[in-house]
Amino acid sequence: MSELQEDTRVEPAGPGRYEGALTDRWVIGAGLNGGYVMTAVARAVQAEAVRPHLLTMTMHFMSRAEPGPFAVEVERPRPGRSHETLVARLVQDGAIGVAVATCGERRPGGPELRTLDPPDLPSPGECRTRTRPADPGMTFLDRFDYRYPQGQMDRIESGERHEPRYEGWVRLVDDDFDEPAVCLLADCFPPPVFGPMGLGYVPTLELTVHFRGDPGPGWTAARFESRVLSGGYVEEDGDMWTSDGRLVAQSRQLSRFTPFD
Amino acid sequence: MSELQEDTRVEPAGPGRYEGALTDRWVIGAGLNGGYVMTAVARAVQAEAVRPHLLTMTMHFMSRAEPGPFAVEVERPRPGRSHETLVARLVQDGAIGVAVATCGERRPGGPELRTLDPPDLPSPGECRTRTRPADPGMTFLDRFDYRYPQGQMDRIESGERHEPRYEGWVRLVDDDFDEPAVCLLADCFPPPVFGPMGLGYVPTLELTVHFRGDPGPGWTAARFESRVLSGGYVEEDGDMWTSDGRLVAQSRQLSRFTPFD
Repeated sequence: MSELQEDTRVEPAGPGRYEGALTDRWVIGAGLNGGYVMTAVARAVQAEAVRPHLLTMTMHFMSRAEPGPFAVEVERPRPGRSHETLVARLVQDGAIGVAVATCGERRPGGPELRTLDPPDLPSPGECRTRTRPADPGMTFLDRFDYRYPQGQMDRIESGERHEPRYEGWVRLVDDDFDEPAVCLLADCFPPPVFGPMGLGYVPTLELTVHFRGDPGPGWTAARFESRVLSGGYVEEDGDMWTSDGRLVAQSRQLSRFTPFD
Repeated sequence: MSELQEDTRVEPAGPGRYEGALTDRWVIGAGLNGGYVMTAVARAVQAEAVRPHLLTMTMHFMSRAEPGPFAVEVERPRPGRSHETLVARLVQDGAIGVAVATCGERRPGGPELRTLDPPDLPSPGECRTRTRPADPGMTFLDRFDYRYPQGQMDRIESGERHEPRYEGWVRLVDDDFDEPAVCLLADCFPPPVFGPMGLGYVPTLELTVHFRGDPGPGWTAARFESRVLSGGYVEEDGDMWTSDGRLVAQSRQLSRFTPFD
């Protein structure tokens, strides 16, 4: 079983209740990465759902998740027909997160439109791997292989201020992304606000993922961009693509941003 | 009291419970507009919240709302410090919608960033008003004054296929948008997917609004765009601006799309 499968596994523990344990392999600065935590909640939602696919899921993060046992309590407020909406609470020391998800099934064969393109990246082999010393405060980064275009990597490493956008390839070191893991994928790049603003705390208040297609095996191409930081809050939009150019997901989150001084 | 204030008013009806009545002044094709319904839910959330401002709110629409009485049941899963998350169920014939909102307070004076600009529009006076016959199936459109640039209006009226984007000015006929009404604002333009695809049913599964600044008086400039229709689902992103160029909100929704014919 891969690291992610192991660390987001849930077991049924009564009607609508699932239990598991978060681990310290997904620490990013001050706490566990939000996309990692959301992946565990998504597994509980998918275990409870009758419809086969997650279509859209939003999680609000109320308090920091800690490594250790958790429960997810899933409710279905109304029986679904073609769509099914579920509400999930993540519980550690009381409720620490709330998610709402709608599940259903994509139906190919209808009209298609695409005015958004994948990022224009060199192949993963032509991109730079980020090498870095082991850091107990950033275990998260050891779970992925990231490949950034050379110019972007130079800007990251030099600390030069740059536009609030990151593009690159990513994969888990020991697994492919499955559908719940798209929540993790949507939150696995550095916050783009670091580009123009430098490093800071960026706790996620809310993360929404639109699941637009099955994640592919191997490399995923991703683009994350922030456009407005105002009043202490910044949004981050993401789009994620299979290596053969199919859209996997669109994501948007809202975070607080407090610069390190 | 304005039409919108009247038609989204809620009264306390027990702990965490609010009641009101939806009206047929907000009908758009097959049912009540989702942003209108969400505005009523947002009023209940704001009435229950301790923190002063909505920051981010997501609503999942499970079943069609009908004109007539409704209740909103609001829970606070965990006491908040700087942020407060509330879960709200919209009830008519059982639960028909679920929303999650995080409330807090924007803090001016910190670092600011903006790489997104308002749409480049002629003044409202230089834009075209949309005139149309009264239509009992589209009472919604009578609630607003829309002003579109001439070229865009020509394309709408001629039915010529065009890019999946609408930009223009909008205001309520008898009121300014207040904070909960930003949910309505985020859903008050024609679906951009109509541009390339022609008319169809576009029921919203989920609508997320990031509240980025206070709505201004009078005209609001808005841009709505869809980029990917696939498997029967289409997203729609919006950004909304005061007439003096401050960002009011960013929105994103996921909808089914079924063309007429």
